[in-house]
Order: sequence, then C-alpha cells, then structure tokens
Amino acid sequence: MTVYLNGMYLDQSQAVVSVDDRGFLFGDGVYEVTRARNGVLFEGDRHLRRLRRGLEGLSIALPPGLELEALAAISERLLQENDLGTGDATVYLQITRGSAPRRHQFPPPGTPPTVYLTANRLVLPDDVRSRGAAAVTTADVRWGRCDLKTINLLPNVLAKQQAVAAGAFEALLVRDGIVTEGASSNLFAVVDGVIRTHPATNRILAGITREVLLELAAELALPVAQDPIRVEDLGRATEVMVTATTADVMPIVHVDGRPVRDGRPGPVARQLHGALTRRLDQATARVGVK
Amino acid sequence: MTVYLNGMYLDQSQAVVSVDDRGFLFGDGVYEVTRARNGVLFEGDRHLRRLRRGLEGLSIALPPGLELEALAAISERLLQENDLGTGDATVYLQITRGSAPRRHQFPPPGTPPTVYLTANRLVLPDDVRSRGAAAVTTADVRWGRCDLKTINLLPNVLAKQQAVAAGAFEALLVRDGIVTEGASSNLFAVVDGVIRTHPATNRILAGITREVLLELAAELALPVAQDPIRVEDLGRATEVMVTATTADVMPIVHVDGRPVRDGRPGPVARQLHGALTRRLDQATARVGVK
Repeated sequence: MTVYLNGMYLDQSQAVVSVDDRGFLFGDGVYEVTRARNGVLFEGDRHLRRLRRGLEGLSIALPPGLELEALAAISERLLQENDLGTGDATVYLQITRGSAPRRHQFPPPGTPPTVYLTANRLVLPDDVRSRGAAAVTTADVRWGRCDLKTINLLPNVLAKQQAVAAGAFEALLVRDGIVTEGASSNLFAVVDGVIRTHPATNRILAGITREVLLELAAELALPVAQDPIRVEDLGRATEVMVTATTADVMPIVHVDGRPVRDGRPGPVARQLHGALTRRLDQATARVGVK
Repeated sequence: MTVYLNGMYLDQSQAVVSVDDRGFLFGDGVYEVTRARNGVLFEGDRHLRRLRRGLEGLSIALPPGLELEALAAISERLLQENDLGTGDATVYLQITRGSAPRRHQFPPPGTPPTVYLTANRLVLPDDVRSRGAAAVTTADVRWGRCDLKTINLLPNVLAKQQAVAAGAFEALLVRDGIVTEGASSNLFAVVDGVIRTHPATNRILAGITREVLLELAAELALPVAQDPIRVEDLGRATEVMVTATTADVMPIVHVDGRPVRDGRPGPVARQLHGALTRRLDQATARVGVK
C-alpha cells in the first residue's frame, strides 16, 4: 500500500516518523477522514475548510510550497495508486506540528509540520445498518475544544472500547445530562416528531456527514432542529441514529440494552440514508466514465 | 545520542515509529519524566508506580518479558551511554498502545506496545529561580482525567505556548474559579500562612515533586494543606510557586503582570527548594564514589 508522507509516496511499511514528532509526543495535530467513491472525494472542500480551521485553531502552518488544495490532488493520487479508483474508500489525512526536541511550547518557526495521508478500502456496515445498531452511554470527559478535530483522541478511544467490549457499535457521550455525540460520530434523534442534533458548539465535532444531513433534511422538508438531546429524550425518541463518514446514517435501535421504540430501524433514518446515498452517487459520478 | 526503542538501543536519528503507532494517531499512551543526578534516578520507584497506575487506567499491557522494574535499568544504561553519569539529567519514558491499522477501539490482544526511553542533560532554570518567574492564567480546558499522565497533551501545549508568547515561565490553569495547576507543573501558594496545593483528584496530575514537597513541608513542620487555591487566593497569597521534575521549586513572582507580594522570591519557596535539593543530593549520592 502506498501512503504519502512529507512530500514522498512510500510503501506503508516504510512510512515512519521520528520519536520526536509532536504527534507522537503530544498528540499535537489535526486530522480528517474523507469519503471517496470511484476515486472521487465526497465533500472534499468541506473537509479542507474544516482542516484549515483546525490548523488555524492550533496555529500550525502548512509547509512552504504545500497549499491546502494540493492535499486533494494527493488524496486522489493515493486512491489511484492503491486501486481504489472504483468503489468506496476513505482518505485519512493527518498534520502534526512536526518534529523537534520535546518541550511543550511550539518549536521554532519554520519547523516543518508532518503531513501524512493514506487511502483505504471502506467496507460499509450495511449489514449492521439493516437490523440497526446498539449503543451504550458513557460520560463525556473530553476537553473543552471538541470542535477541533485533533488527534488528542484518548477519551474517544476509551469510550469506543467500552462500546465494543459491550458488543455495541458506538458509545454515546453524556455531559451535564446532554448526549453530545458518539465517540466517532454525531448523534441525531427524532423527538416529538423533530429531528434533533446537538448544535455546532465547542462540545461536539460537527461532522461533514452531519452538515450534509441537515441540508438533506431541509430539502426533504423534514422538521429538523439543532437542539441538544437530553438523556431523558433518548428514552422517548422514536428514532436514534448516528452519522459518520465511515458509517453514513446508522440507526441505533438499542441504547444501554433498552430498545428504541420497537427496536428496529425507523423510517426517518431510512429516508435520510437514502438521500445521502443519492447525494453521494451524484457527487461522485464521473462524467463520461462508464 | 542513544535512545531505547522496543528492545533496542539506537541512535536518536534511527529511532522512528510507524505512522500506525497509536501514539501518533490517537495520543494513546502514557509517559514519565524522571530526574537523575550522577546517573542515579531520583524517586524512580514513585515514577514507576505512577506509570503502572497510568498503564492500568488505559488498559495497556507491557510487552511479554518486559517488567516495569526493567525500565529503571534501561534508564540507568541510557544515562551511562549518553555521558550523563555525572550532573543533572532527565529520563523521558513513553509507552503507547502500539501499532495497528487505525480504529478507535483497542487493537487485538497481543499487539505489542511501543516503549521509548531517552535521557537528556537537564539545565536547571536557576537563574530564573533566583529572581522568580512570571506566570499567566488561562482557562483549564483539559479532559476529566488529568490524573492520568497521558500524551494527550494538546491543551497543555497551547497553554504553555500562551505563557511563552507572553514572556512567562508557566501558564496557570483555571477551572471553575480554582487554579488547578500549571501547564507542566503543580501549583503551591502560601495563603494565610498555610502552604496550599490542589488535592490529588482527577483535576490535576499529582507530580512526584509535589508529593516529595508535601513530605518535606511536614518534616519541616510547615503548615501545609491539600486545599484548592481560588483565583482570588492568588491575589492575597504571600508566595506562589510551581513544582516540576525539571524545575524543582520555582517561585512565581508575577501573575498576569501583577506582583506576588513584593515581586520577589519568598522564604517558603527558598526553604522548600533547599530541602528538596538536600533530599536530591542524599538520594543520588553514590556510596563510595568520590
């Protein structure tokens, strides 16, 4: 498998970073996971906009000569080189503050950041989707800037592991009585007939799929609101679902062992997933390619 | 410089980890910084106990055949090999959950963790200590498990950078009106004649230097209490100081530009630093070595 690392295309096995990399020492970096189909990035511009915001939030400058837009071209080349020009794939992109002797403060200006990209086959969890997934709730103990997509992901790792150990698909994070989002997904719930999701504050990482779904719901004239979902709302929700680049719309049919409504995927999740699939198909259709 | 990485002693320039290392991808690991003098570790056992607690907290198992105690021997060898057998040095030790294809949940059991150690000359900030240091306050936005010494250090990095950009030595972190600790240090303040420091809860990383100082203060019969320091306490404190493995006792004489008392190091900081220095001297004296 070919990956990109600091200007070079390498075999994965050769892709190494210094033990002095600030990603390795401090988790000092940001990342994106972008969906691709048939070699075409889905919502690539939105991912780059979010990446730019994250880099600015952390004051990480791109290396001289590397424009943010070039990352899209690198992504597409990786898709081609790894035989991912057809079907579903993801591109993982990570930028850290680079390599320097360990001190908390930023290294001297001009220290080149580490830029790493890799493309992988995406196997969608369609079988889980058809019967619906289970989730567990756990305390949201993350830091105060969940809106930055950083690689300080330990709380997410621990929450996800808790879910997997319980045989569940996702961990739903609860802070101050509010279910903010999943360990690696955003949360939607249909409460009193309205599709709700947490507003895009510092308490969540507002996903690209979440953004697209909000648009699709509006297009479909479905009632939708960016309002927090309280723990007690989950109990009376007629549908619960999580969204992520690697999972699309995933109905959650059990939370902490209790069924959501009748414990089966509901019509809103199905409708939204269908709309997302069409949007994805249209956006990634290659004109003139059979 | 020779470092230790996964069973091998290598030149620093050869010490690299895979881009799949969970330290690099998730900040999924723990670390310790241990003081050494004349090739002898200071409070090595306490550091290993804290490390063990961190590994357990994150459910990271050591690789088969590597006992925690062996890390002390590796540390001492690194000190020798890097001509740090005399004078002050630090040993940095980091253990991550190892290398595996990127997924949030833990990799399969048996995935070997990454074990990295390096030893470096420590230049103590004695010049800063003699006149006292400046600090700034900033919001403590860290996660809910500050008691684990993990490499998810981005909030600490950003706080420290804010201090350095302001010409200060340290950033003091404020949560809910309480000054919890510094970006890479613990905080002590003398308020109403009592030496106060935040209790060892999940809100702080209880440093080894902090622990030793609490003992030394008791030995010196100085009034000491593990009570939170409020922002307003800082304003009326007669002394403020931070403690860290790499700084010992550092008097803070300005906070956000305002002097502490007369803006000069005080007697309690001097007394505690003296006691710590003696303890360090005694603990690291090599019997029979001139």
